[in-house]
Amino acid sequence: MKTSEIALIRLLGRVGSAARNPQVRLAIGDDAALLRPRRGFEAILTCDWFLEGTHFLVNRHPPDSVGWKCLARGVSDIAAMGGEPKCFLLSLGIPKSRTGQWLNGFLKGLQQAANAFRCQLVGGDTTRHSSVLINVTAIGEVPAGRAALRSTARPGDMVFVSGTLGRAELGLRFLRRGTGSQLRNDVALKKHLYPEPRIALGRWLSSHGIASAMMDLSDGLSTDLTRLCTASHVGARIEAARIPVATLFRSRGSGRRGSQKNPLEFALNGGDDYELLFTVRPTKAHRVPAAFHGIRLSRIGAITSGRELILRLANGRETLLLARGWDPFRTGR
Amino acid sequence: MKTSEIALIRLLGRVGSAARNPQVRLAIGDDAALLRPRRGFEAILTCDWFLEGTHFLVNRHPPDSVGWKCLARGVSDIAAMGGEPKCFLLSLGIPKSRTGQWLNGFLKGLQQAANAFRCQLVGGDTTRHSSVLINVTAIGEVPAGRAALRSTARPGDMVFVSGTLGRAELGLRFLRRGTGSQLRNDVALKKHLYPEPRIALGRWLSSHGIASAMMDLSDGLSTDLTRLCTASHVGARIEAARIPVATLFRSRGSGRRGSQKNPLEFALNGGDDYELLFTVRPTKAHRVPAAFHGIRLSRIGAITSGRELILRLANGRETLLLARGWDPFRTGR
Repeated sequence: MKTSEIALIRLLGRVGSAARNPQVRLAIGDDAALLRPRRGFEAILTCDWFLEGTHFLVNRHPPDSVGWKCLARGVSDIAAMGGEPKCFLLSLGIPKSRTGQWLNGFLKGLQQAANAFRCQLVGGDTTRHSSVLINVTAIGEVPAGRAALRSTARPGDMVFVSGTLGRAELGLRFLRRGTGSQLRNDVALKKHLYPEPRIALGRWLSSHGIASAMMDLSDGLSTDLTRLCTASHVGARIEAARIPVATLFRSRGSGRRGSQKNPLEFALNGGDDYELLFTVRPTKAHRVPAAFHGIRLSRIGAITSGRELILRLANGRETLLLARGWDPFRTGR
Repeated sequence: MKTSEIALIRLLGRVGSAARNPQVRLAIGDDAALLRPRRGFEAILTCDWFLEGTHFLVNRHPPDSVGWKCLARGVSDIAAMGGEPKCFLLSLGIPKSRTGQWLNGFLKGLQQAANAFRCQLVGGDTTRHSSVLINVTAIGEVPAGRAALRSTARPGDMVFVSGTLGRAELGLRFLRRGTGSQLRNDVALKKHLYPEPRIALGRWLSSHGIASAMMDLSDGLSTDLTRLCTASHVGARIEAARIPVATLFRSRGSGRRGSQKNPLEFALNGGDDYELLFTVRPTKAHRVPAAFHGIRLSRIGAITSGRELILRLANGRETLLLARGWDPFRTGR
C-alpha cells in the first residue's frame, strides 16, 4: 500500500511523539515548530544532505540504516560543538515506489535514532521526487560561550581522535560487495550503517575545557584535519603509527602487501566514522584518559605553526598529508 | 568558469556576511552555527524544499528569483507565526552546468532576500547533483507564548486574508507561456517571482492579540483554509464575492466565459501567494483596518462549528469548498 501525503505526515507525527522534549512547545502540524531555549544556552544549527546515489545506495543500505544515519550525521555535528541534541526537521523527497515497505523501515530507523539521541522530530517538508532526497536540520544547545570550535587550535596543542578510524569505509566496501562477507565483518558494517555520534564525549571535552578545538570526522582524517588547521591558521604533524586503525583489517590474515597498506589509507581518507577530532593544550593533556566510556582516545600528533600537514610514517620518513577524503564535488556526478 | 566546493563556500560566506544579525555567534565555517536567543523569546523552526522541476522551472524562472523565493517561503512561515526572521541554513545540490552564471544569479537573489528580510545565512551543506536541489531552514523568534497558531480558531471567528489572491498563479501561467506576455503583466509576474512575506503584518496581528489563528497562504486558499480548519476542529463559510481576486484578470477584456470564472478559481486554488490567512474573534473585528501599510485586509467569511468548508457564491447558492490547491503528491511525479 502506498502512502498519501496526509498518511505520511501522520506517520511522521508518530515519530515526533517519541523522544519528546519538554523544551519543544510546538511540533509537527503548524507553519513551523517552536523551541523554548534554556536561559544561558545558545542554539546549535546544522543541516546535511543525505541523497540516494550520493550518500547511500538504495539497493544496498537497509532503509532503517538510512533513517538512523540521516539523523546521526547532524547529531554528530552537535556533539562536535560540545552540545546536546534537542530536535530536528526532516525534509523528505520520495518516489511512489518507496512509500510502502521502504518508508516503514526508514521511519523505524529514524525513530530509533531519535530515541537514542533524545532528539525530537518537530517538523519538515515532504514532496514527491524521482529518487529519495533527504535533508535533516538538527538543533542542539550548548552553554553560552562554551561551544568547541574548529578555529581555536594553537601551535603546540596535541591532536587526539576518538575510536578507531577507517572502519566505516571498510563497512561500505563490504556492503558494496554484497551479503557474502557481511557476517564476518559485522563490526565494520555496523559502524557504517548505524554510526553513534559521540555526544557524551563531546560534552565532557567541552564542558571541562579540555578540548581547545574540536570537530567531527565525517569525511576522513586527512580532509577534516585540513579543515581544522585551515580554520585555525595552523598546521599539524601526525604520526602514522599512532593512528588507531581498525584491527579488523589485520585479522583477515592476507599476506598481500595491499592488506598492510589499506588500514592507514582507510583511516586517513575513509568517510563516515563520526568520531571526534580534537586538540588539547599541552598543560591539559594529562587530563585526557586512555578511554572514555569504552571509547579509545588516541594522541596522534601535534599542531604546528607551519601551515602544512605532515605525516610521519613508521619508518621515520615524513610526507605531506593531502586532503583525500570524501568530497561530493570530486566523487559525485 | 565553474565553481569548486571551496569557491562555492566562499561565495556563500559573502552572502552570509550581508544581513548580519548580532544574535548570530558563529556563522559559516564550523560544524554548525550558533544563535544566541533573546530572553523571553522562543525559536521558530521551519524548512522547505525548493526543487528544480517541482517548485521551479530552471529554464523559465530567472536564477535570482529562485534565490529570492527559496528564502521567502520559509520567512513567510515565520511571518505567519507572528515572528521575526533571524537566520537561515541553505542546502544546495547543483549540477556542474549551473555553477557559473546561474549560481551567480541565484546568490544575488538570495542575498537580496537575506537583506530585505534581515535574515542571515549562517550555514548549510553543498553537494553535486544532476538537478538543482534546494532546501532552506529558516529560523526566527517570537515572544514566548505569543506565536499565532493554526489550531486556535473558534466558531464565530471572522476569516480574513491579506492582499489579493491568485495573482502568483497567474504570474506562473504567464511565465510558462514565455516572454511575450511578460511586460503587460509584470505585477502578477513579480508576485510569482519575488513574493514578499508579510512579516510586519504578521507581527502586528499577533503582538496585538488580534489574530486568534493564523497561517500563510502558500498552496491556495482552499487547501490552506482546510488545514487551518482541520487543525482547529472547525469549519468555515466563505463568501466568494468577498474574496479579493486579482483585478488584473478583468483588465484583459476577454468576453469568454473562462475569463469570468478564472479569477475566483485562481484565488481559491492557486499557490505561492504568501499572503496571510487569519481569524479574529468577533469582539476584535473592529480593530482590523481595511489596509495595513498598503496591504488590503479582507474579511471573507466566518468560522463555523460544522466541519465542512462552504463557499457561498455570488448568486446565493452554496457549494462545498474542497482542497484543490497545490499538492506535491498529486501534481508531482
